[in-house]
Amino acid sequence: MGEFELIARHFQQPAAQAAAAHGVPLGIGDDCALLQPAAGQQVAISTDLLVEGRHFFADVPPAALGHKALAVNLSDLAAMGAEPLGFTLALALPPERAQNTNWLAAFSQGLLALASQARCPLVGGDTTAGPLAICITVFGQIPAGAALRRNGAQAGDDVWVSGHLGDARLALGALQGHWPLPPAQMACARQRLERPSPRLALGLALRGLASAAIDISDGLAGDLGHILHASGVGACLHAPALHRLMACAWHHAPGAPTRLQLILNGGDDYELAFTAPPHARAAVQHAAWQAGCRVSRIGHIEATCGLRLQTPTETLPLPPKGFDHFAA
Amino acid sequence: MGEFELIARHFQQPAAQAAAAHGVPLGIGDDCALLQPAAGQQVAISTDLLVEGRHFFADVPPAALGHKALAVNLSDLAAMGAEPLGFTLALALPPERAQNTNWLAAFSQGLLALASQARCPLVGGDTTAGPLAICITVFGQIPAGAALRRNGAQAGDDVWVSGHLGDARLALGALQGHWPLPPAQMACARQRLERPSPRLALGLALRGLASAAIDISDGLAGDLGHILHASGVGACLHAPALHRLMACAWHHAPGAPTRLQLILNGGDDYELAFTAPPHARAAVQHAAWQAGCRVSRIGHIEATCGLRLQTPTETLPLPPKGFDHFAA
Repeated sequence: MGEFELIARHFQQPAAQAAAAHGVPLGIGDDCALLQPAAGQQVAISTDLLVEGRHFFADVPPAALGHKALAVNLSDLAAMGAEPLGFTLALALPPERAQNTNWLAAFSQGLLALASQARCPLVGGDTTAGPLAICITVFGQIPAGAALRRNGAQAGDDVWVSGHLGDARLALGALQGHWPLPPAQMACARQRLERPSPRLALGLALRGLASAAIDISDGLAGDLGHILHASGVGACLHAPALHRLMACAWHHAPGAPTRLQLILNGGDDYELAFTAPPHARAAVQHAAWQAGCRVSRIGHIEATCGLRLQTPTETLPLPPKGFDHFAA
Repeated sequence: MGEFELIARHFQQPAAQAAAAHGVPLGIGDDCALLQPAAGQQVAISTDLLVEGRHFFADVPPAALGHKALAVNLSDLAAMGAEPLGFTLALALPPERAQNTNWLAAFSQGLLALASQARCPLVGGDTTAGPLAICITVFGQIPAGAALRRNGAQAGDDVWVSGHLGDARLALGALQGHWPLPPAQMACARQRLERPSPRLALGLALRGLASAAIDISDGLAGDLGHILHASGVGACLHAPALHRLMACAWHHAPGAPTRLQLILNGGDDYELAFTAPPHARAAVQHAAWQAGCRVSRIGHIEATCGLRLQTPTETLPLPPKGFDHFAA
């Protein structure tokens, strides 16, 4: 199977589907794709590169890989409050994968199922031979001035997160053999690792409500730290609220991270962390209800820089610690 | 050096430069970048993934690599007649490269020099550890309906190409040790391989003149074949005109490709192939003069499908043969 046949067979969506897509006058098949954002809208753009052995295991189910490769990018659109327009896919495939029709079909199915669900069509791309790597760039639209930025958090604002945190990291460590995990918890946690749900509806519903937002890919402490840094503020998180954020049961085992460590520094969550003034609490809850998504109020913004953890007995400084791809 | 320091040190352009960029309300540093195309304009998008050992040698000068990684993408904008707005860079770096400040500085210099020249700022990206791979996605703007598509060629149109063809492939084969090349020719050909000039000004000047256009990345025969296929037509190319397309002197050596083979099937040229009606000849020449770029009329479009070569003595069928990354 050659390059053009591979694209036509696995990645070219039916013309009817492409034509039905809003805002895509021209999809796959020319030198460029063409997007037509609605009048007055800005185009939000994010790109992520996933490398085998670094972001996913060689034996990850290909449908899950396709889903996740797009999900992590859509999560960035969600964090800005943008509405998806489309995405490009650049794919480096080792020759044996390029000839593995089952693998490609499952990868494409996982990818395009989420694309269809998110109304975010594949508009173009590139395929080449090479070590397995997936580079997706997503495009969304958002009215000028409505983007949820990182730099708007104010002292007194509440700190919120969507969904659950820490479970993906729990699954990752167990799959790497770093700690044991009973089958029921593994099933729960693995779903969170392999099938993250980008919070697009929540991001849209938070336009005009949230003062700042970010998606949690490198761990809550590190990513919230980006909001604090950009906004020139600090935050205090409430330990009991944090404890309730994990979806799976987890009783700390020797040598393994604690529940709080998983929640604060786990990463791979693809949930939203955001801030909003206290008077917007009911509106935030209503937005989350509309979006079909749980949100939790986990702390508040303070004028003093730094991140702190408030337990029932004391307040402790927390080192902001996100994932760094080149850390020693 | 960590991930965020690496970005700040080598890829974050001065705020003044970013602010001066048209159409980029928000660059590096949030979940998404924001682009603001002018009213009534569509957004043209292209993405390319370059992999070490496949698209470039491990010892390629890093400044040339940075230049070329962006140039091949800008060439796609040029082929649509789009005006650059910005680009994203996703970079997988082996740890030893991430710590090699000289390499990174030179790569970034080559990349950002072309970005500045093309008025196409870096607006966002991703860095990760992994086998060296560079995924660039470029964005341009173009009035609705003005894009130079592949499907507009008409029988009777002239076939044109910009610049020179075949020299990049000549250098590639010589660098791979497949044939000898004297130093003077190598210097000339290598410049064409490592420093392609995206024909952005020509693409803009051809709006409303060219009936179809494509950028030549996989060889003239293959890429012109995409225009013919999309337009449902054929073409006849004139051998004497083709012979004049190489910039470097090349006398066919045993076991090496001929001049005509290099020109037709070489690839890596990043020139434009386009068609235009005969009454537009003077206008095309004027557009090329305005763009500071040589163009050559090399044949004509015919109603009969297929690609043919007309020599002084006969007309031969030409197999359309472009580069295929997964061909056996």
